[in-house]
Amino acid sequence: MMSGGLSTGELKDVLAEARQIVRETRIVIFEALEKGFGHRLKPDRSFVTDVDFAVEERVRGILGARFPDHGIIGEELSRQDSTSDFSWVIDPIDGTRSFRHRVPLFGTLLALLHKEEPVLGLIDLPGLDKTYSAALTMGAFCNETRIHLDDLASDDAIENEIIAIGERQQFQNAGKTEVFDRLMDSHPSVRTYCDCFGHGLAIEGSTGAMVDFDLRIWDTIATKVLVEEAGGRYTCVGRRGERIAEARFDVILGKPRVVEWILNLVDATSG
Amino acid sequence: MMSGGLSTGELKDVLAEARQIVRETRIVIFEALEKGFGHRLKPDRSFVTDVDFAVEERVRGILGARFPDHGIIGEELSRQDSTSDFSWVIDPIDGTRSFRHRVPLFGTLLALLHKEEPVLGLIDLPGLDKTYSAALTMGAFCNETRIHLDDLASDDAIENEIIAIGERQQFQNAGKTEVFDRLMDSHPSVRTYCDCFGHGLAIEGSTGAMVDFDLRIWDTIATKVLVEEAGGRYTCVGRRGERIAEARFDVILGKPRVVEWILNLVDATSG
Repeated sequence: MMSGGLSTGELKDVLAEARQIVRETRIVIFEALEKGFGHRLKPDRSFVTDVDFAVEERVRGILGARFPDHGIIGEELSRQDSTSDFSWVIDPIDGTRSFRHRVPLFGTLLALLHKEEPVLGLIDLPGLDKTYSAALTMGAFCNETRIHLDDLASDDAIENEIIAIGERQQFQNAGKTEVFDRLMDSHPSVRTYCDCFGHGLAIEGSTGAMVDFDLRIWDTIATKVLVEEAGGRYTCVGRRGERIAEARFDVILGKPRVVEWILNLVDATSG
Repeated sequence: MMSGGLSTGELKDVLAEARQIVRETRIVIFEALEKGFGHRLKPDRSFVTDVDFAVEERVRGILGARFPDHGIIGEELSRQDSTSDFSWVIDPIDGTRSFRHRVPLFGTLLALLHKEEPVLGLIDLPGLDKTYSAALTMGAFCNETRIHLDDLASDDAIENEIIAIGERQQFQNAGKTEVFDRLMDSHPSVRTYCDCFGHGLAIEGSTGAMVDFDLRIWDTIATKVLVEEAGGRYTCVGRRGERIAEARFDVILGKPRVVEWILNLVDATSG
C-alpha cells in the first residue's frame, strides 16, 4: 500500500528515523540551557538564538546524509531545492521567545512533504518530555501512546473547553485583531498557549481547539497530519502568498465541533 | 533572630517540612492522572475534582497532627479557626481547569501566615517537576537552586519581555476588563499563563510580570513571600471584602520596572 509516494513499510521506517532526529536535537537544546546562549533580533523584529541555528544545522546534517535528493525548507537557513517530490520542513526552535526566557513550552518541528502535502509530522517538546508524531494512515502518537482525539459530545458545553490562541500580535500582523478580540469576548477560557505547545494540547484534546494566525509553513504543517491522524480537524482560513515557503497561513484545528463553533464566530466577524 | 514570630532555626525547619508536604501530594495527583478522576461544577460555576478534596485532606491531616494549634484556611474545606497567630493557607489544586483537561500547568500552593502576613510560601508544579519555596529573610528557591530575580536593566526594552496575565473572565468578575484589553493592546507579548504557572514564571524572571485579578487568598499569598524573597515586587491594586478568607485580590508582581510600567497603564485606564 502506498501513502504519499511511500509504501507503508518505508513510511514507518522514515517516521522512526524522524523521531530519532528530533530526540537527538534535545542534546543541543539542554546543553545550551545549561551553558547559556546568545540571541539577536532578526529584521522582522523577532528573536533568533544561536540554538535555532545549531539545531537546524544538526537536523540538516542528518537529513542531507540520509536523504540527499530531498529538498529542505527551514526557518533559519536558505532553502535547499531539489527535483524530488519530497521536501523536509524544519522549525528548529518554535517558540524562540519562550526559549529565550526559559519558559519550557518551546519545541522542535519536523515534517516531510510529498508534493506540498505532509506525509509525516513531529512536534518535540523537550521541556515537557513529549514527542508528538504521526504519519499518513498510521495514526498519531504522544511518546509511545496512540492519540484518539474524541470530538466533543453533543451535550458537552463548548464553554467548558479551553480554547488556545496565538498572541494578539499575530492577529494584528494578519490584519485580523477582531478575530482575537471577538474570541476573547465570546468564550470564558481563551488562553494564549502559543506555538507548538498549543498545537500539541489541541492534538491531545486537552484544549478544544487552537486558533493560530500568520504562521509560516514550518510553524504549522507538522500539525496538519498530526491532528488529522488523531481524528481531529485542521482548516486553513487564510493564506497570504503563493509560494509555500513564503506564504502566511491562518489555521484553526482541534475537535470538529469546537472548530465549527469558532469558524461560525470568525465568519460573523468578517461579515 | 526572629521573623514572623519564629526563630530562624524554627522557620528553616518548618519550611523543610512544608516542602516535604507538597512533594507528598504529588503521589495523590499522579495516581489520579493515571487512574482518572471525577469532577463537578461548584455553585460559583468553577470546576472542582475529587483530587482537589483528596489533596486538601492529605495536607490538613499532616498539618493537624504536626501543628494542632494552628488555624487552616483551604479552598475546598471549611475554615479551621484557632487562637494561635499562625494560620496555614492551602490551595490543593490551583488551576483545576487545567488539571481537569490534563494541561500540565496546575499546582499545589501552601503558605503559613503570622497575623495575616505570609512567613513562608510554596508553589509545587508536579507537571513540570518544580517546587518554588521561600521563607522570610531566607531567600527563594526553585527546587534546590536559589532564585535571584534581577530587575530589567534600564536599557532593556519592556516590549522584549513576556507579560503573563490571568483569564479575561477574571477581569470581568473584577469589573475591570479594560485593564485586560488595554494590556493586550499595549504590549506585543501578553500571554494568559494562568494560575500558579504564571506566578512561578514571574518569580523566576522568565516573564517580566504577572497580572492576576479576582484572586482568593489561597491563590496568591504564597506568591507574595516568594517574589519578595526573590528580589521582586508584589503589589495589591484592588481588594474587595474585609475578611481575609472571603476577600478578592487584584495583584501585579514581578520585576520592579515592569510592575511600575503596568501600574502606570492601569492608572491611565481607571483615570
